[in-house]
Amino acid sequence: MVEVRDLARHTGEEVTVGGWVDQLRVHGKVAFVVVRDGTGYVQCVAVKQELEEETWEAATGLTQETSVMVRGEVRAEPRAPGGYELQLRRLQVVGTSPEYPIQPKEHGVEFLLDHRHLWLRSSQQRAGLRVRAEVEQAIHDFFYQRGFVRLDTPILTGSIGEHAGTLFSTDYFGQNAYLAQTGQLYVEAGCPAFRKVYCFGPTFRAEKSKTRRHLTEFWMVEPEMAFVDSEGNMRLQEELVTYLVERALERCRPELEYLGRDLSKLEAVKPPFPRISYTEAIELLARKGSETRWGDDIGGADETLLSEDSHLPLFVYNYPKKVKAFYMKENPDDPRTVLCDDLLAPEGYGEIIGGSQREDDLDKLLARIREEGLPEEAYGWYLDLRRYGTFPHSGFGLGLERTVAWITGRKHVRELIPFPRLLNRLYP
Amino acid sequence: MVEVRDLARHTGEEVTVGGWVDQLRVHGKVAFVVVRDGTGYVQCVAVKQELEEETWEAATGLTQETSVMVRGEVRAEPRAPGGYELQLRRLQVVGTSPEYPIQPKEHGVEFLLDHRHLWLRSSQQRAGLRVRAEVEQAIHDFFYQRGFVRLDTPILTGSIGEHAGTLFSTDYFGQNAYLAQTGQLYVEAGCPAFRKVYCFGPTFRAEKSKTRRHLTEFWMVEPEMAFVDSEGNMRLQEELVTYLVERALERCRPELEYLGRDLSKLEAVKPPFPRISYTEAIELLARKGSETRWGDDIGGADETLLSEDSHLPLFVYNYPKKVKAFYMKENPDDPRTVLCDDLLAPEGYGEIIGGSQREDDLDKLLARIREEGLPEEAYGWYLDLRRYGTFPHSGFGLGLERTVAWITGRKHVRELIPFPRLLNRLYP
Repeated sequence: MVEVRDLARHTGEEVTVGGWVDQLRVHGKVAFVVVRDGTGYVQCVAVKQELEEETWEAATGLTQETSVMVRGEVRAEPRAPGGYELQLRRLQVVGTSPEYPIQPKEHGVEFLLDHRHLWLRSSQQRAGLRVRAEVEQAIHDFFYQRGFVRLDTPILTGSIGEHAGTLFSTDYFGQNAYLAQTGQLYVEAGCPAFRKVYCFGPTFRAEKSKTRRHLTEFWMVEPEMAFVDSEGNMRLQEELVTYLVERALERCRPELEYLGRDLSKLEAVKPPFPRISYTEAIELLARKGSETRWGDDIGGADETLLSEDSHLPLFVYNYPKKVKAFYMKENPDDPRTVLCDDLLAPEGYGEIIGGSQREDDLDKLLARIREEGLPEEAYGWYLDLRRYGTFPHSGFGLGLERTVAWITGRKHVRELIPFPRLLNRLYP
Repeated sequence: MVEVRDLARHTGEEVTVGGWVDQLRVHGKVAFVVVRDGTGYVQCVAVKQELEEETWEAATGLTQETSVMVRGEVRAEPRAPGGYELQLRRLQVVGTSPEYPIQPKEHGVEFLLDHRHLWLRSSQQRAGLRVRAEVEQAIHDFFYQRGFVRLDTPILTGSIGEHAGTLFSTDYFGQNAYLAQTGQLYVEAGCPAFRKVYCFGPTFRAEKSKTRRHLTEFWMVEPEMAFVDSEGNMRLQEELVTYLVERALERCRPELEYLGRDLSKLEAVKPPFPRISYTEAIELLARKGSETRWGDDIGGADETLLSEDSHLPLFVYNYPKKVKAFYMKENPDDPRTVLCDDLLAPEGYGEIIGGSQREDDLDKLLARIREEGLPEEAYGWYLDLRRYGTFPHSGFGLGLERTVAWITGRKHVRELIPFPRLLNRLYP
């Protein structure tokens, strides 16, 4: 059996292709069957007078998503999708497909999400998910090439995380375990072993958010670097985001074009990215009519306002301590704030990265844990990292689905993960 | 700041290194401070008469795991660990480390697991985890180079899995969700979209096993291929395992040597791997004195018996239907059995892969789901894959920690994952 992507190498040969029927057009005594095999599309030309009657009957009765094995000669044909045709000789129906639920018409989104296991086969969804897969490989390549050691962090954890109240819990042989919101605290422990480490895996937030930017289960890459400050942290973020965009442009151009992405906007993504402090951001928001005041968090609507004018991702740095997580390092120049940054994607996509230098002072960290009312005993091991050879370190988390939504120009993050988990959406 | 791995490029220059104190030896007026920076070790030579008194005092008072910044001139020194020395000029203590818990002596395993966040810094643990990271990158490279599309599968699922009874559950906004035991059923849905797909992520088993081969949370890579049978499936397994061993040999030789691995055993791992049927395996076990009879599952002790004589991984194929998962395809030549394989690592390491051709017949699959008493409605979407263009397909799951335990020659899988989750072990 030959894959459609390799047909060019078999011109003039008779080959077999296995796949699914995408389209059938019958014009009198000639029929065109377009077969998708997962690597591409090939048009099979069936000519009635060249075929046994039952093959002709079978070919002209094919329904959408029927799985078939087709055999025929490969011919170059510039007008055919993919550039090659198969002159049909034999046809075997592998699996019928009566009344395939997803028809070439508009379906409601809940219907499509209910049929996500089939919706995956449609062109737009495949294009988006292929970009996701490329970005994932690019993430691993980026860190591997720079000498980071991958360090997988646990999903099942004691009561430790960024914030209380948005944790999924499970019974763990009589104890309570919680699904990790972040791997960061664990990768910090990896720094004294490997200096530069990262984790990449699913994370969980039991938030009742119903926005187009939220999933309850999403993927995040979290690098952590010893002896790197907030400034160096932002530089790595620029490099990573630029690299991911370049890889998508280089290796997923057909998918991005299919999705109608404005490639010039992606091609403009080069470092350095503009940087404004939180205080400057608040001033800018005031001029744009936002009611957000110094001390408030910057929400999704504000992020859109801040990033709408920019062709480049925008750093907003040094937020007030009160709106950020307990582990961020106090800013020595303004102790009301912490040494952190959010990176906002352009075109209104909002936050794709949150990063910070970490609090490396044992007493200050302990004070913050107590202020937030976090369970101190669960953080004992985390505090040990400050007891035994504490060190300046920084890192960040990049949300995969938001990043891919921006790169592909799709509005909803739910399309950029194979099986989205949303409020009330656990199936399929 | 310079990384130790790059010191060779800075011979003769004065550089700063940041890291943790591994060893201190004082010989009269000369002291040797070995610093680990996560990329390597460097010996710093402190000569009393060349230093200010307080620097000498600080250097000779350093305790294990104190974090420091050391400045000095780089000199080639073949006798020094790593081949380079630093002639110490300046020393800054970044973080003290009084009474570091892990001393250069024997500690009990429970003590070490309680201090896993610090134990990660020790040489053996770093060597094993670095091999793990290399094998992970090799997994991604292997599938990427072969045109597989990565398809991340959900952790939070409805009541779907391989077996009931070993699932962790959580409240999902009023519904019950279960942590996935496998991504396989979901990657099957990806085949009609991308033909060859794989997932790689954490999986969960709420098993009360206390063996050296079990974790409650472990990582598994699961490829799935459309229009590939059990035979082609085993060929891919051979290729993958061979590639992973080659990559470890090529890029982690120092780590494997440090761990005392017999490299000749790894170098012998070349396809084809020997194959015996389940029936032959039972006969062989009988000759070796096992009481296991035809129809029984082959347990860990039996796997060790089967694989102890072999220098190559060993396939055992076509097990009885009753001991295998419901989704495996009935063997047309012997319907008591299914088209499946287990791959047993040599040297007694046991199963590292379980694979099978999948049941693509809707009626047979439905009958198996009913026989096993699985909740039929939860499998509706999975059955759809047989309703709409069903297709022959095969895949497998390779357990990461078991594979890395074998490659590194370590006895316990718990050392090959950064933060192992075991029965009663949820901390750190």
